Amino acid sequence: MTTNGPSAGAKRDENMTGKMQTMLREAQISITDAIEKIDGKGKFQEDEWVRPTGGGGVSRVLSGGNVWEKAGIGLSVIHGEMPQENLRAAKDRGTARSSKDEKVPFCAAGLSCVMHPRNPHCPTMHFNYRYFETDDGEHWWFGGGTDITPSYVDEEDMQHFHGVYKDVCDRHDPEFYPMMKKAADDYFLIPHRGERRGLGGIFYDDLNDREPEKLFKFAKDAVNHVVPAYGPIIEKHKNDDFTEEQKQWQQLRRGRYVEFNLVNDRGTIFGLKTGIGRTESILMTLPETASWLYDHQPAPGSPEANFLDAARNPRDWV
Amino acid sequence: MTTNGPSAGAKRDENMTGKMQTMLREAQISITDAIEKIDGKGKFQEDEWVRPTGGGGVSRVLSGGNVWEKAGIGLSVIHGEMPQENLRAAKDRGTARSSKDEKVPFCAAGLSCVMHPRNPHCPTMHFNYRYFETDDGEHWWFGGGTDITPSYVDEEDMQHFHGVYKDVCDRHDPEFYPMMKKAADDYFLIPHRGERRGLGGIFYDDLNDREPEKLFKFAKDAVNHVVPAYGPIIEKHKNDDFTEEQKQWQQLRRGRYVEFNLVNDRGTIFGLKTGIGRTESILMTLPETASWLYDHQPAPGSPEANFLDAARNPRDWV
Repeated sequence: MTTNGPSAGAKRDENMTGKMQTMLREAQISITDAIEKIDGKGKFQEDEWVRPTGGGGVSRVLSGGNVWEKAGIGLSVIHGEMPQENLRAAKDRGTARSSKDEKVPFCAAGLSCVMHPRNPHCPTMHFNYRYFETDDGEHWWFGGGTDITPSYVDEEDMQHFHGVYKDVCDRHDPEFYPMMKKAADDYFLIPHRGERRGLGGIFYDDLNDREPEKLFKFAKDAVNHVVPAYGPIIEKHKNDDFTEEQKQWQQLRRGRYVEFNLVNDRGTIFGLKTGIGRTESILMTLPETASWLYDHQPAPGSPEANFLDAARNPRDWV
Repeated sequence: MTTNGPSAGAKRDENMTGKMQTMLREAQISITDAIEKIDGKGKFQEDEWVRPTGGGGVSRVLSGGNVWEKAGIGLSVIHGEMPQENLRAAKDRGTARSSKDEKVPFCAAGLSCVMHPRNPHCPTMHFNYRYFETDDGEHWWFGGGTDITPSYVDEEDMQHFHGVYKDVCDRHDPEFYPMMKKAADDYFLIPHRGERRGLGGIFYDDLNDREPEKLFKFAKDAVNHVVPAYGPIIEKHKNDDFTEEQKQWQQLRRGRYVEFNLVNDRGTIFGLKTGIGRTESILMTLPETASWLYDHQPAPGSPEANFLDAARNPRDWV
């Protein structure tokens, strides 16, 4: 899945950034429409922004909903010049360019989303689908994924969520789901905790091993299955009763979410450190509220301990 | 203040790690005693831990106090071997060692503390005093500082806090306060926000430009002035009335505190990434609760806007 060096496997599609932008904008609209219906009260506020050095984006943010405490979905289309070292940092791999100091003109389009519900039995959901290319056609790749972060393990929910994405993957390549499920389990690890932030999903990056059109279709299929994968789980749990202890546990898991995003998430750190992207749009992913208690340990055998076990030892759900 | 390369300016004191450990442990006890008296309800729980690869520590944590929602003060004495690259990362400078792969035996003693009060008119306070040396006497240095993070500007409080530390500094070297005040303003910057996490204090690192005994006495004087600098501010404000909006503003500032600690704080990132230190002790510094709202902007002319201005443009308080 991951190649090293220039994207030699297939030819770049000259119009791919534009195609991705159009497709992702449509997905942004259809997903926010569906989420508003499930929420019943909250409305997304749209906010356009322009990046002074090239490009911009459209953020849609819902706060104070019935179901969601905070939900954000941001489209970014960025073009500019990037130092070689940023390209290397972004890709975690070397480049074939000759001059060390040369700046690399690039273009990137992505749609990124996090939704944090109030009810501790409703999972947080995140997705991100993106396309990156350098102007000379030397480098291009797709990345993306959808993953789920409950506070408790509901096996049926996980079978549903992972099942939807396994079906999506299988339609494009039977090797995708096992590979991308493992990549999500690897990516969402918080090393200093020895646990993942949630219960995974699919994740892929640096994908350029076949025709761009095929990878575009896969991204489109995946982003258009966010609502079928996530919506039914929220409908099922949005009115569940919960205790104060369960709410506190959710807040601690939100703390872990913040830790992952600020310490380990490649995209967040890349965006914050390079100044590529807009801080408020990058940090839109953080929950409205989070909590930290010193050395909190769930009681052995409790549902909280069961969740931690699943976050420490990834399970196969489908 | 900062030297480059081996600590050639003065001879190492063979007993310094032990002396620091004893002095910092006494400070840990006297500070927690004083804080318990001010709080009136909360008690520090002591927790000893052993680092499997060498050393350990004593954490004292208070939660659920009258005044403080969470306060932690951790003593660590760590010895072990460190890859060259960690030594470089720790010091942000190269080393003179010949072999690249050689591991460097080291010893470090430090006392680190964060206290987060409930009342939004009571500031959070942080300090850290530490000593580091490699076993061959080639490298040693002191670091430390005390800084304050209110949610609102109270000029009198800031004059008091900075005034106490200016007096401490002036007794040791009249150049210390201006240098260390500026170093704190530089260090506590959150670059992706263009603002500091709080209103500064003093900060120093890599200090080895004079006899170890002199630097030890300075560290001792500084840590022993935490209570005189911070206590009166808490006594003054601990029963202040506050609104829900002021509490929410405090929660947003706590979010910035988390951002700084997880994205920018050298010590936190070093500890989490290298596995040197214990995660729960490193992250003891995080607040019990924090909040993020999308693109929140205080009203022009409001006390919140005045705070932001002071966090963006450091002021001289004394």
